[in-house]
Amino acid sequence: MPPLIAIDWGTSSLRGARLDEAGRVLEEKSAPLGILNVPHGDFAGVFASLFSDWMTPAGSVCLISGMAGSRQGWVEAPYVACPAGPDELRRHLHWIEPGRIALVPGLSDEQGDVPDVMRGEEVQIFGAMRLAGLTEGLFVLPGTHSKWATVRGGRITGFRTFMTGEFYGLLSQHSILARTLEADAPLDEAAFLRGVARAGNGEGLLHNAFGARALALFGRLSPVESASYVSGLLIGEELLRQELPAGPAVVAIGAAALTARYALALERQGVLVRTFGAEATWAGLSALLV
Amino acid sequence: MPPLIAIDWGTSSLRGARLDEAGRVLEEKSAPLGILNVPHGDFAGVFASLFSDWMTPAGSVCLISGMAGSRQGWVEAPYVACPAGPDELRRHLHWIEPGRIALVPGLSDEQGDVPDVMRGEEVQIFGAMRLAGLTEGLFVLPGTHSKWATVRGGRITGFRTFMTGEFYGLLSQHSILARTLEADAPLDEAAFLRGVARAGNGEGLLHNAFGARALALFGRLSPVESASYVSGLLIGEELLRQELPAGPAVVAIGAAALTARYALALERQGVLVRTFGAEATWAGLSALLV
Repeated sequence: MPPLIAIDWGTSSLRGARLDEAGRVLEEKSAPLGILNVPHGDFAGVFASLFSDWMTPAGSVCLISGMAGSRQGWVEAPYVACPAGPDELRRHLHWIEPGRIALVPGLSDEQGDVPDVMRGEEVQIFGAMRLAGLTEGLFVLPGTHSKWATVRGGRITGFRTFMTGEFYGLLSQHSILARTLEADAPLDEAAFLRGVARAGNGEGLLHNAFGARALALFGRLSPVESASYVSGLLIGEELLRQELPAGPAVVAIGAAALTARYALALERQGVLVRTFGAEATWAGLSALLV
Repeated sequence: MPPLIAIDWGTSSLRGARLDEAGRVLEEKSAPLGILNVPHGDFAGVFASLFSDWMTPAGSVCLISGMAGSRQGWVEAPYVACPAGPDELRRHLHWIEPGRIALVPGLSDEQGDVPDVMRGEEVQIFGAMRLAGLTEGLFVLPGTHSKWATVRGGRITGFRTFMTGEFYGLLSQHSILARTLEADAPLDEAAFLRGVARAGNGEGLLHNAFGARALALFGRLSPVESASYVSGLLIGEELLRQELPAGPAVVAIGAAALTARYALALERQGVLVRTFGAEATWAGLSALLV
């Protein structure tokens, strides 16, 4: 394959890697220049200032996944409807400079009454599949908007988004719970698992969230514990909605601190978990060139 | 009964009524002086400035319900554990001036693993029971923190809180949904009922909330419709958790614009609803004197 400049250009940050012909990462770079922070919307200027030196070798190709392909990004690369695999993404690359710089489209799932969308996670999933040698399975990408995707025959057949991370931010910073919760506290495993277990009581998140307030009022949950308990309530609520496999591992892709929480909750339920980080993005973008 | 000064002193506002010996409201008064807005914590000063003229007739008694009896209020009136009726509240009135001014305690429900609490709603429930001539039933008090209480033999036997109103504020003002939602839009009944129906799909609030974003992205939900749809998702999620009676009416107490939404959703499910407003507070405080 040609030398690849792989870029994950998200809402709040931008990460890039330079790969050699064999797909090995030679160098990485990141900047707090997510699509919402691009001065004057000058995407071409930000790109040139950060990556023009990487693009000098003849035949270099740059693939950009993530929100840079959204309506608020560089250029809109319309969603590709799933089921979709690397082939479909490759066919719908949106070239900014033909043969040289392309935006990777996101995926939509329009099979239900209400559509769903992802941008960037599809590349991470295809990368993790490649790294793990998998052509099927259940994949979770925890985050502000967690994604759960089902893969069959090497293609994403369907997926759903959960606003778990965003709800955590809202509750821990802006709600009444913020008064008795230390949002940045390190993980308290016992409190986290209490929250996960509580989520399964059938009373729903609107009630269980208030329970965190009442427990704090009664002195039964410290501010440090509250942070982990509420995180557990939310992740537990998300897990309730999944058909978890009895045999094969669920593949979790994302920041280690976050995938570790999902692994903790899932392993308590007897579900195996295999985790990947940023390497999944680079492998996924490489897969589009091959 | 003696002349009663009935006060509902909440978090953000304060409302009072002067009642005659027969319990009829002679005059009402309100101020934006909720417990969080009392200058220098001078509760006695605020009380005197607003109500000293009402207290002049000999034998006048003032009863104050709501957050004024909380730890952040005038004086803490400890929770009374339910099951509890007007008798229990009366026995635990917290007198600031003996025989003259008292705080009404709130209720706690400590029957489950996680406690629950209310302050002020218990008085509204006893008032509505009196006005409706009921000694049992299911009562809902929609709001920032909605309360659902079960009444048997004239006493509240248990209750649960749902952070429905607060979640609406968080999602409509601070989340990604705020970008495509007109938070103060008037009710769109069709969009509201679509949201209520969607809440019952078994996918949970974390996923269904993101659906509102996706529908807006696809041009299938306008900003005005989004406000009602998200309200419907939340109220629908709350209703899922109730054992709704087939025969007798659910009693809804609160602001008319809010109880109307609950009535709309409940009546679609074949549940009768009877509504009360501020009069329930005055009747409930009167009931404590008799």
